[in-house]
Amino acid sequence: MILAADNLRITRRSIAQAIEHLDPEPIRRLVIACEAAGAGAIDINSGPLTRDAEEKMTFLVETVQTATRLPLLLDTVNPQAIAAGLKAGTNPMIINGFSLQPVKLETILPLACIYGCRIIGYLLRPDGHVPADGIERLNLALELYDACCKAGLENKQLIIDPVIVPLTWQGGIMQDREILTVLTRLPDLLGFSVDTIAGLSNLTSGAAATTQFRLVQQTYLAMLAGAGLGMALCDVLKPELVRTARVAKALMRDIVFAWDELV
Amino acid sequence: MILAADNLRITRRSIAQAIEHLDPEPIRRLVIACEAAGAGAIDINSGPLTRDAEEKMTFLVETVQTATRLPLLLDTVNPQAIAAGLKAGTNPMIINGFSLQPVKLETILPLACIYGCRIIGYLLRPDGHVPADGIERLNLALELYDACCKAGLENKQLIIDPVIVPLTWQGGIMQDREILTVLTRLPDLLGFSVDTIAGLSNLTSGAAATTQFRLVQQTYLAMLAGAGLGMALCDVLKPELVRTARVAKALMRDIVFAWDELV
Repeated sequence: MILAADNLRITRRSIAQAIEHLDPEPIRRLVIACEAAGAGAIDINSGPLTRDAEEKMTFLVETVQTATRLPLLLDTVNPQAIAAGLKAGTNPMIINGFSLQPVKLETILPLACIYGCRIIGYLLRPDGHVPADGIERLNLALELYDACCKAGLENKQLIIDPVIVPLTWQGGIMQDREILTVLTRLPDLLGFSVDTIAGLSNLTSGAAATTQFRLVQQTYLAMLAGAGLGMALCDVLKPELVRTARVAKALMRDIVFAWDELV
Repeated sequence: MILAADNLRITRRSIAQAIEHLDPEPIRRLVIACEAAGAGAIDINSGPLTRDAEEKMTFLVETVQTATRLPLLLDTVNPQAIAAGLKAGTNPMIINGFSLQPVKLETILPLACIYGCRIIGYLLRPDGHVPADGIERLNLALELYDACCKAGLENKQLIIDPVIVPLTWQGGIMQDREILTVLTRLPDLLGFSVDTIAGLSNLTSGAAATTQFRLVQQTYLAMLAGAGLGMALCDVLKPELVRTARVAKALMRDIVFAWDELV
């Protein structure tokens, strides 16, 4: 399992300002810190970018690429911004993402075919709502895969996100527990070892960042890794998550075991 | 997932001496500490008790029962000692355990039927060796279940132990990773939600108790819980294991989520 940093997001004031003024330094500093902390990919969460979308996404991708050679996730619902980011991309690029919502099938999924890049598919209903349980997620995975095949995508281009929900939601614990089963069943269901990603920060959304909160993220991260998750999107500046991910990676690979490499 | 303390073991000098001199106090103190720390069951690892087996196991069970009302695991290969322990038992009793080894099928498994108690079945070959991989473990589970049915055991009496191996063994990481898959598949394979237990301390057997070591145990414990493990046998005096188990329990149950209860 690798960690994708969700730290670079427009909801942070310093990042919003850097994007607004096309100021590269705050963005570069953050990306360098994320890679040094152990990130294996960087999510560029630009929001919808309603104004100057192409210029801003181009600036973001070019800026991040001066700081790292890690894969980049283009995290926006704006297809023009995604296309601009893909054009500017020299690092490995991942579209984040699409779902069965018709507008996304029509405007975002084709970009993965045009640019030959990977794309994250969310297990959401066609109306954009979160499914009720694990069984519905598995059915949505089949529909999503079907849509990808029809669009001409290759299997290895698809990355599935089962959509972690906040534990504080009604039925949230049940849903997040069933996601573990979804992850273990996806390869058999689709007939190939489909890559997966999940947004860990959603789990504790709305809760205060106490010690409990961190241990809950850490424990669920290990559970996700044990269920076969490929990539976790999270705050990589939390050292306990990076340490847990490193141990989980060692436990889930066939390598010679060296304790010293773990922490 | 609940934690069964593996702290009460004859390999500890103070415990060996207490058993030899039939001195209850060191045993009582340890059991009280384990329960206070968060143990949900106590494993009585007496070793084979080659001399005065019945007297010593009776003393052990009676002594532990003056300190706790938790379920007790009788962890010895000596069937006379097990029988004596079961006779003395007023707490819920669990035999730990049997396997497909003929001598254990003949002498230990019948005790579970006679005393109507639960029994742990190890996924070991009939010659007592550890299986090579997950597939062999699943086959052994079927054979073990078959033996239980023939002996007249009820489904709820059986607890399966998939046999964690040290990570430092050749192929150890692969085996311990496949154990996660074994745990997720057992209910479908046997047709009922069979209870499970695993000895976590085996994982890091032979390694020094460094920070890495503890994080490896903690991470794998979360993975086991996520895969559905019912009970983990471990050193409950390590607070990080107890905290992880508590969070894992909250994540794997349908309860109202209360952050304050977690740590």
